[in-house]
Amino acid sequence: MLSEFSLIDRFFARRAAAASSRAIEGALGIGDDCALLAPRPGEMLAISTDMLVEGRHFFPDVDPEALGHKTLAVNLSDLAAMGAEPQAFTLAFSLPKADEAWLAAFSDGLFALAERYGCDLIGGDTTGGPLNLCVTVFGSVKPQAALRRDAAQPGDDIWISGTLGDARAGLGVQRGEWSADASDTATFRRALERPEPRVFLGIALRGIAHAALDLSDGLAGDLLHILERSNVRATVDVDAVPRSAALRRLPPEIQQRCTLAGGDDYELCFTAPVAARAKVEAAGREVAIPVTRIGTISALQSAADRPAIGWRNAAGAPLTLTLQGFDHFHAD
Amino acid sequence: MLSEFSLIDRFFARRAAAASSRAIEGALGIGDDCALLAPRPGEMLAISTDMLVEGRHFFPDVDPEALGHKTLAVNLSDLAAMGAEPQAFTLAFSLPKADEAWLAAFSDGLFALAERYGCDLIGGDTTGGPLNLCVTVFGSVKPQAALRRDAAQPGDDIWISGTLGDARAGLGVQRGEWSADASDTATFRRALERPEPRVFLGIALRGIAHAALDLSDGLAGDLLHILERSNVRATVDVDAVPRSAALRRLPPEIQQRCTLAGGDDYELCFTAPVAARAKVEAAGREVAIPVTRIGTISALQSAADRPAIGWRNAAGAPLTLTLQGFDHFHAD
Repeated sequence: MLSEFSLIDRFFARRAAAASSRAIEGALGIGDDCALLAPRPGEMLAISTDMLVEGRHFFPDVDPEALGHKTLAVNLSDLAAMGAEPQAFTLAFSLPKADEAWLAAFSDGLFALAERYGCDLIGGDTTGGPLNLCVTVFGSVKPQAALRRDAAQPGDDIWISGTLGDARAGLGVQRGEWSADASDTATFRRALERPEPRVFLGIALRGIAHAALDLSDGLAGDLLHILERSNVRATVDVDAVPRSAALRRLPPEIQQRCTLAGGDDYELCFTAPVAARAKVEAAGREVAIPVTRIGTISALQSAADRPAIGWRNAAGAPLTLTLQGFDHFHAD
Repeated sequence: MLSEFSLIDRFFARRAAAASSRAIEGALGIGDDCALLAPRPGEMLAISTDMLVEGRHFFPDVDPEALGHKTLAVNLSDLAAMGAEPQAFTLAFSLPKADEAWLAAFSDGLFALAERYGCDLIGGDTTGGPLNLCVTVFGSVKPQAALRRDAAQPGDDIWISGTLGDARAGLGVQRGEWSADASDTATFRRALERPEPRVFLGIALRGIAHAALDLSDGLAGDLLHILERSNVRATVDVDAVPRSAALRRLPPEIQQRCTLAGGDDYELCFTAPVAARAKVEAAGREVAIPVTRIGTISALQSAADRPAIGWRNAAGAPLTLTLQGFDHFHAD
């Protein structure tokens, strides 16, 4: 560790060590060659890793506290999509220089979210270099209860948590693609910078939902991952896709592209049998996260049929959408 | 994932998926929100993460096959230092562009090492950006058998695997700090670019060694981590520190600095009781890795005494060494 990086001890290692000795029985945290971690008895570790790069996933002038939040949030969102309970994470990052105020704000945002979900920092690496943040997150889940992408069944409803499109709307405002009033701009910006991972909803949906994933690249592309892995088709009512009051004040064509191909939503998209509708709604109420039914899974019609999304309007009429080339911030 | 990054599927995801379905029973690999992984019954997962940045940990023109090897090797070295058996790893990386020949060579180097140690790629992330490689590695170990840094005991011998200093000698040749003939240069370069993680030795030392770590920043700094965590002192015979025939052909003062403060060695430094000498030597023979005794652990002498290394020559006379400011490649 560079001597100038002793600041990092102060902002990360000490808080991590305190958290580890408190929360993870039998675990060994920062300060040895490896951390030691076990899932709960009978469970497995759900593991996901995401890398955030300046200029590609966030603007160079982003609020560091929000960046700390988002760096962990996008990883917790992957745990939510498996129905896994957060347990721990590692953080590796490269920084051009050790800026005390920046590190203090970044670590505040990171640990506030980590503490809310009981997720302890157990290891890491720091180095000089262009700003790059890499988190690997660990959750615990019974393998048979995990919400996998390959478990959608014909006849399933398709559900969405929260609303879609605000993050992409916020990116458009920052880029000058469109404008909004100060209040709507703040709503959009909050969605872009401080997504709330749907951890409690993912846990509540275990044993109820069939398939699930989190929306990071836009509904149109991400839902297709479920369809391809489950070898099924989907019909989606475009008008049913939930959107915020702020987004409804943008032109309809922008609303549609933001909700369907926006990216950076970090809401859950999941499928569940029709018979489970009341249970899905109860799960949403229990964790105070709205859930909305937007469509239906169906079987492939022939050996030549391919997994695909059929878009419909509220009247059930087919729509042809051109969503290609609508780039979003999280472009990879 | 950027469309140009579909190459990555070819070089990583397919080989990873094949490996996962073969080796990890009940695990879910690449293609879902998370991978699922469990340690063996009664064991814990040993977890370590390392980030490698261009210009800081490797030269921009490094052989990509060697870089693939080293990226995983430095992480496996952390598992070796815990006595953990490799199980799986995740790889997140940013790349300026998707260069097919580069990715083919990089992935060849990575997977050749992964297969040698039965370590499967189970997840990852790829993005555009300055070249940055982040691996998180998972091994399995019984918590009571883990080789921790805080377990050195007064009276323990201090041992080193292999030889030290060749990697730093190779860096010096590349930097023009000193020169060597073609054969020695090749030896040094191999040490710098293709360190072999001492995984089998770490496993063989379980139940024999007390404390262990892997040498990445140089013996003088790294041994101090064991001393500080174990609250003990060390006496090291500088002339006993093992070095290669190639290194012995450099001037004595350079030999000494390369072996004691060189960095990038990825050899194990461990302590074991005197009564275990025959067992340590047998463990080294069993895995065909030389082990050399270089010193002794002792208790602190008073409440004011601090963990420190006392350097001696072969005659037992104290030496005062100036190792500060001898920078190495792995500078953080």
